[in-house]
Amino acid sequence: MASTEGSKLWGGRFVGDTDPIMEMFNASIAYDKRMWDADIRGSKAYVKALEKAELVTTEEMENILHGMDQIHDEWSKGVFEVKPGDEDIHTANERRLKELIGEPAGKLHTGRSRNDQVVTDMRLWLRDAISTLKRNALQLITTMVERAAVEMDVLFPGYTHMQRAQPIRWSHWLLSHAVALSRDLERLHEIRRRVNVLPLGSGAIAGTPFNIDRELLRQELAFDDISINSMDATGQRDFVAEFLFWASLCLTHLSKMAEDLMLYSTKEFSFLVLSDAYSTGSSLMPQKKNADSLELIRSKAGRVFGRCAGFLMTLKGLPSTYNKDLQEDKEAMFDCYDTVHAVLQVTTGVLSTIKINRGVMEAALSPDMLATDLAYYLVRKGVPFREAHGISGKAVFLAESKSILLNQLTVEELRTASPLFSSDVSAVWDYSSSVEQYSAPGGTAKSSVAAQVEHLRTWLKKQAW
Amino acid sequence: MASTEGSKLWGGRFVGDTDPIMEMFNASIAYDKRMWDADIRGSKAYVKALEKAELVTTEEMENILHGMDQIHDEWSKGVFEVKPGDEDIHTANERRLKELIGEPAGKLHTGRSRNDQVVTDMRLWLRDAISTLKRNALQLITTMVERAAVEMDVLFPGYTHMQRAQPIRWSHWLLSHAVALSRDLERLHEIRRRVNVLPLGSGAIAGTPFNIDRELLRQELAFDDISINSMDATGQRDFVAEFLFWASLCLTHLSKMAEDLMLYSTKEFSFLVLSDAYSTGSSLMPQKKNADSLELIRSKAGRVFGRCAGFLMTLKGLPSTYNKDLQEDKEAMFDCYDTVHAVLQVTTGVLSTIKINRGVMEAALSPDMLATDLAYYLVRKGVPFREAHGISGKAVFLAESKSILLNQLTVEELRTASPLFSSDVSAVWDYSSSVEQYSAPGGTAKSSVAAQVEHLRTWLKKQAW
Amino acid sequence: MASTEGSKLWGGRFVGDTDPIMEMFNASIAYDKRMWDADIRGSKAYVKALEKAELVTTEEMENILHGMDQIHDEWSKGVFEVKPGDEDIHTANERRLKELIGEPAGKLHTGRSRNDQVVTDMRLWLRDAISTLKRNALQLITTMVERAAVEMDVLFPGYTHMQRAQPIRWSHWLLSHAVALSRDLERLHEIRRRVNVLPLGSGAIAGTPFNIDRELLRQELAFDDISINSMDATGQRDFVAEFLFWASLCLTHLSKMAEDLMLYSTKEFSFLVLSDAYSTGSSLMPQKKNADSLELIRSKAGRVFGRCAGFLMTLKGLPSTYNKDLQEDKEAMFDCYDTVHAVLQVTTGVLSTIKINRGVMEAALSPDMLATDLAYYLVRKGVPFREAHGISGKAVFLAESKSILLNQLTVEELRTASPLFSSDVSAVWDYSSSVEQYSAPGGTAKSSVAAQVEHLRTWLKKQAW
Amino acid sequence: MASTEGSKLWGGRFVGDTDPIMEMFNASIAYDKRMWDADIRGSKAYVKALEKAELVTTEEMENILHGMDQIHDEWSKGVFEVKPGDEDIHTANERRLKELIGEPAGKLHTGRSRNDQVVTDMRLWLRDAISTLKRNALQLITTMVERAAVEMDVLFPGYTHMQRAQPIRWSHWLLSHAVALSRDLERLHEIRRRVNVLPLGSGAIAGTPFNIDRELLRQELAFDDISINSMDATGQRDFVAEFLFWASLCLTHLSKMAEDLMLYSTKEFSFLVLSDAYSTGSSLMPQKKNADSLELIRSKAGRVFGRCAGFLMTLKGLPSTYNKDLQEDKEAMFDCYDTVHAVLQVTTGVLSTIKINRGVMEAALSPDMLATDLAYYLVRKGVPFREAHGISGKAVFLAESKSILLNQLTVEELRTASPLFSSDVSAVWDYSSSVEQYSAPGGTAKSSVAAQVEHLRTWLKKQAW
Repeated sequence: MASTEGSKLWGGRFVGDTDPIMEMFNASIAYDKRMWDADIRGSKAYVKALEKAELVTTEEMENILHGMDQIHDEWSKGVFEVKPGDEDIHTANERRLKELIGEPAGKLHTGRSRNDQVVTDMRLWLRDAISTLKRNALQLITTMVERAAVEMDVLFPGYTHMQRAQPIRWSHWLLSHAVALSRDLERLHEIRRRVNVLPLGSGAIAGTPFNIDRELLRQELAFDDISINSMDATGQRDFVAEFLFWASLCLTHLSKMAEDLMLYSTKEFSFLVLSDAYSTGSSLMPQKKNADSLELIRSKAGRVFGRCAGFLMTLKGLPSTYNKDLQEDKEAMFDCYDTVHAVLQVTTGVLSTIKINRGVMEAALSPDMLATDLAYYLVRKGVPFREAHGISGKAVFLAESKSILLNQLTVEELRTASPLFSSDVSAVWDYSSSVEQYSAPGGTAKSSVAAQVEHLRTWLKKQAW
Repeated sequence: MASTEGSKLWGGRFVGDTDPIMEMFNASIAYDKRMWDADIRGSKAYVKALEKAELVTTEEMENILHGMDQIHDEWSKGVFEVKPGDEDIHTANERRLKELIGEPAGKLHTGRSRNDQVVTDMRLWLRDAISTLKRNALQLITTMVERAAVEMDVLFPGYTHMQRAQPIRWSHWLLSHAVALSRDLERLHEIRRRVNVLPLGSGAIAGTPFNIDRELLRQELAFDDISINSMDATGQRDFVAEFLFWASLCLTHLSKMAEDLMLYSTKEFSFLVLSDAYSTGSSLMPQKKNADSLELIRSKAGRVFGRCAGFLMTLKGLPSTYNKDLQEDKEAMFDCYDTVHAVLQVTTGVLSTIKINRGVMEAALSPDMLATDLAYYLVRKGVPFREAHGISGKAVFLAESKSILLNQLTVEELRTASPLFSSDVSAVWDYSSSVEQYSAPGGTAKSSVAAQVEHLRTWLKKQAW
Repeated sequence: MASTEGSKLWGGRFVGDTDPIMEMFNASIAYDKRMWDADIRGSKAYVKALEKAELVTTEEMENILHGMDQIHDEWSKGVFEVKPGDEDIHTANERRLKELIGEPAGKLHTGRSRNDQVVTDMRLWLRDAISTLKRNALQLITTMVERAAVEMDVLFPGYTHMQRAQPIRWSHWLLSHAVALSRDLERLHEIRRRVNVLPLGSGAIAGTPFNIDRELLRQELAFDDISINSMDATGQRDFVAEFLFWASLCLTHLSKMAEDLMLYSTKEFSFLVLSDAYSTGSSLMPQKKNADSLELIRSKAGRVFGRCAGFLMTLKGLPSTYNKDLQEDKEAMFDCYDTVHAVLQVTTGVLSTIKINRGVMEAALSPDMLATDLAYYLVRKGVPFREAHGISGKAVFLAESKSILLNQLTVEELRTASPLFSSDVSAVWDYSSSVEQYSAPGGTAKSSVAAQVEHLRTWLKKQAW
Repeated sequence: MASTEGSKLWGGRFVGDTDPIMEMFNASIAYDKRMWDADIRGSKAYVKALEKAELVTTEEMENILHGMDQIHDEWSKGVFEVKPGDEDIHTANERRLKELIGEPAGKLHTGRSRNDQVVTDMRLWLRDAISTLKRNALQLITTMVERAAVEMDVLFPGYTHMQRAQPIRWSHWLLSHAVALSRDLERLHEIRRRVNVLPLGSGAIAGTPFNIDRELLRQELAFDDISINSMDATGQRDFVAEFLFWASLCLTHLSKMAEDLMLYSTKEFSFLVLSDAYSTGSSLMPQKKNADSLELIRSKAGRVFGRCAGFLMTLKGLPSTYNKDLQEDKEAMFDCYDTVHAVLQVTTGVLSTIKINRGVMEAALSPDMLATDLAYYLVRKGVPFREAHGISGKAVFLAESKSILLNQLTVEELRTASPLFSSDVSAVWDYSSSVEQYSAPGGTAKSSVAAQVEHLRTWLKKQAW
């Protein structure tokens, strides 16, 4: 039993044994080892504060720093050995430190608790993860914007309710998704500010004694701010919940785009062909070329939101301060990061390589999509819009009854709906002039779409956080 | 058929009838009428842009503005009559306008779609709702901070894992929740900026024709910005999803606090007594005084997150642009607003009137809660913390074995755990000096808690958005 | 104070007043009045048990029964007046009873608590609601099955990954959704058994004293069983959670079907035309005919699952027995019922009236959809399937390279992929014989689809619960 | 390129390369290899059907069966080597089969698709998993019931709203949770029936050709039924969704119980002491003994529900039939199984070893908990309950005003509330007789609790499915 005693952080108190299932259930090392680097960085900063507070000597500090560098090296090289009893990354690193430098290792945890240590590790880890996701997202947005710049002259049907609505530019569609992602990045930036706050020095609940200099810790670890209240710092996980929801909303945007692309790449639409690199075949049907990449993108919003829902449900059921239930935070955070990281890159790949069938897209425009323009024709002749809308509707109905296209109605036929129609109505049936009407900001006219491209290019340049 | 025609916005096209269940299922007037004021404001701004674009005459504009003021008056007085066929607030207001001013009413919708109209209404409505919630939250935070300032000398057990951990100040607890809420307000402020963007002038999907001046619309409606892309503006509901999640996280904070307060007001803890105004009795048990207010606060995080989850699931399954599924946005938004609005006020009421039992709180402090201090005693004598922690643990075990309190161990008994104990150990057993150790920022020392109060007071003064 | 006393169930104990917002927050009458009939039925049964236990005289029982009938009458006629202080349906009915019959009304609640009363009301209400939903679902399934029986000869493309896969029968598609719904009904039946258990006689927590005969209550209220444990009976809400999830899964099935139908009714697919009764137009675009009914059906799975998620989150955060948080159960239950009730009926309407374009559907079949058959041709000649699959894939590639259809490849061209091809390969290109291959149970051959129709007809006849 | 060709199931069609991130994103082998045994069992049954249909010779069948046994052996011994290109367990096993037996391996997939193969594997796997969970749950329920049988005489406070309500038996509390779990088992049994249905022979979508005998497959794999419709069989995942929700509700029950136990094991309640085997200490505070096991149990309901929510969100956004998005089903299923499997066992461990402090529990009973009995005293003297409740409430108020216990009020003092009080009121103040009043089924009287024990013992004996 004596030997068991030493292997637990809480040392000589417990007299019973532990259920092996409980041990496994309790341990987090299997996943939290991923934060080994953050844990080491945190400890290195902490020992400097201990030295300043005269709780370790300069020599002990040097030993600890040196030991930590060795451990860093072992992890980097993949040779760090996790041992039974290493229940979490903190225990593992400290256990190893003791093996390397002996006694002074026992001073490292002075005034610190795993409660403030773990949340420091998580914030450091997530700060880096956010930087990576930011780069991934910027690359994707850049791809979309530059593609929109190049293919600006391609028209195709804009859909609402999955029904053909009005002619729009393909680039207008591309930019609509880029704009949504740019909001995601703004949100991510805001979250980063709240992530980048130092909790270390909050102890288990009450704060830290011994004149630990939290400002020194902040500077060492490059945090923007210091947490305001130690109970809040150790017990709240807003920054995780926010990140999980951020991931959910971001992937919901991409799911929506993937759904559009899947529609557009059905045989029936045939607007797009996915690169083989992002398609797969069928084990049964030799002709199949499935847009697996798009389906995976579409599916991941569910997965990620599930993590958010699960963690929020766990959080909601808790009283304040640290409870072990919070251990659910890490797998959720890692999984959401990994998923968004992969999805953003795959989406960039898909959008870089997808081929559009301009001919098919433009051939899909049909005169009935100009029924609004027909109403506007009358508006320009002084008919109130509501009335003009009704007249145009009658024309649509007439054409349908005759099984002809809307632009095949003669002026005489149109006049049965309104006497204001005259031969100049023929000018309505031009898709290129139709789209040029929408020149107000945000519209689908060329000038307006070009302005959107410029707007986003400028915005992209500013994303230096 | 002619009579049916007039009653639908889309006029003369449909020839079939509508299933009454479908009618009801489709109609949103039952709940979206709540945005009557926003809808009128939007239309008044829009007619000014129409006049500038010479789509209505100045006189027609005046008539429409006047008519809209009359409709406003009817809603204000509760005499506006919703009629069959008024499927939504937009239809209802426009129908009434036509009754009041006749023909020119038909010009109001020129170049506008319900797609941009509804999202304009929602943004106007939510902007106001956010202002109200901000005031509610500031009042609550102020209550917490000022109470913390007054009751700063009260000590009680800080709990982690629902077990007594270390002595802390009651005010430290109060402020921990205030700090979490202050983050909620920061998030709300960020959301407000994204809500406060003009979508009007985006039409159904392609934008607006006819030189509608969107900048004029922006100014009239006091939006900060203009939406960048018309497809994004009409098809995305990020601002709703964000708000729903904001509500979920905010109420999760309050649920957590309510859970603490419920614990503290059990017979077993007896730290607090809820005001009768926030308690209710039992229909069966005459002695019961239940903390119904706290239970309701606790429950609402679930309700609100349900709205968030439901709406996100609906959103996630959609292709881009407007789909009727988005109609789910409004009930979710209203319900979350109403719930948070009530919860914030009730929580303020509870916290203003709750009585604390200082005597009971302080009597709940026990010497074992100073076991960390006992370890620190040894640390100050040079023992590495890990070892000191183990020694203190042995002392705890010894006291338990003897069924005595930790501070009742004699120095001799303590020495069986470590020879470094001497008579000066008696100074450890003082709760007031214990808390004063935690004087680093965020800690529970008086100076530190006072600094937190000042920090929040300063922060509160800056909340003028 | 005396006057306030009488207006609360818990009588003479509280001395403070109540915050009006708290009052409103606390009251459930606005929605639980919907259970007025169940509440009356429960009370009528209960008074019979009281009489048997000699806690009321026969005369008092008669008075109470008579009074309850009068109250029933008032609710039925819509003249029951809810008064301030009627915080819930139980209070309202009992208050009214006292007005009608005086003193003996005060005996009705003997040995009963609102904890067992409310859950009895809910179970009675939900039992009826389930019966209605069952009828709605059976009607929908019948519509699907009978339509499948009639349109069995219509072939169209079966899709996987939203890509054309193999020719199938339209009826096969219809039945695939009917089969999913039949599982929903089985689940609903199982839930009904768990709903149909009597909780009355569980009191607040400990059970009921006074020899209340629970078997008599069970018989009076036609419950199948009696709850086993009073704490479980009053504190658990499994039956609500189950029902909410049931609704979510059922509507997920319908969302999936609606998504198919929306695809099929796009201009690009044009397989279907929705009845005007289930379509709506656009306020801007005169030509639009939107499948609003399908979009609403699709959206509701989200709404309903949100209710499930919200309620489960609330439930999960609770200790056992009754807590006020459970009040969230009713709005969730009502909303899910109303939604499923409407969706099932609208879906039945849609499926009864939708018109299929058989010509378009069959024209959408293309020879590449028979690539699997081409592989099977080789399999029949002894080629292992994997190899045959590869050869067929090469043929597909060859046809694509030549921009011709797969069945336009000459035998010579096919032989470049495999020497086993000979002129009998032409028999492969027949869609009707292709589908007839799938004659194993569950397949798309006519005999197999007809067997599915018969299976479901037989199943429908058995649904007499 | 030729070499790449062979390594993909869909063989010679694709000419492009694949993005490595996409490869990883697409592959499921990392987790679906867990179904290796089910996959082998399915293939062994399938080859027998192929032989019966004369698609393989008897010798080929023997070779395939033998090869599969070898593969089984390799997996069992942990020596099966997953190779690059083994994108899923099906590909891996078939690739290995080809290495072992050559050409005939290519015949195994005849008429089969991964669409029906994967769902067969999942159903086989889950069927086994359900059997294990059933055993775990039965063990837990047995533990609760037998403990309840032994400790039936222990009384303690029953709580509602977290406030002391009425005296109850400790066993009554134990059984309340056992009863909830027994419902979970009934639900699991129902789910098993729906899981245990054979999908193999559904192909990709249209069914299976070649006279594959599905009844033979059913018998070989011991399924209860054969799927009715091939599109439903390959495209629906009800059985997974149901299982995920089942896990959520089951763990919500255990979370609720854990919350009770955590309360009861606070210092303030002190009703229980957790075994050291299920507790952990603090890295900072030597005296801490945290109920980590209970916190973990409590937290897992959130995790599991997150999986359910995530998967349902993914499902809801899909059209019918197989879409790659369904790949999300497996990790969710595995994680929920693993979690429930661990939680059930840990909970059994906790409940087997927890020690109750009978003295503290009984000392926690207080006379105010008999206020309902005081009202019943008056009811027995003919006072209507409502009035009696009010009188008892006044007595409670009186005792509180005098700071004495309710049973310390003199008869004279009681008479100020009602003249019906006389000296026999002293009989009210007996906790043991109080609980004996609740002798109706489900109540807390000894006879009633004993009947609950017997009921559950009988029920346990019947759980032989």
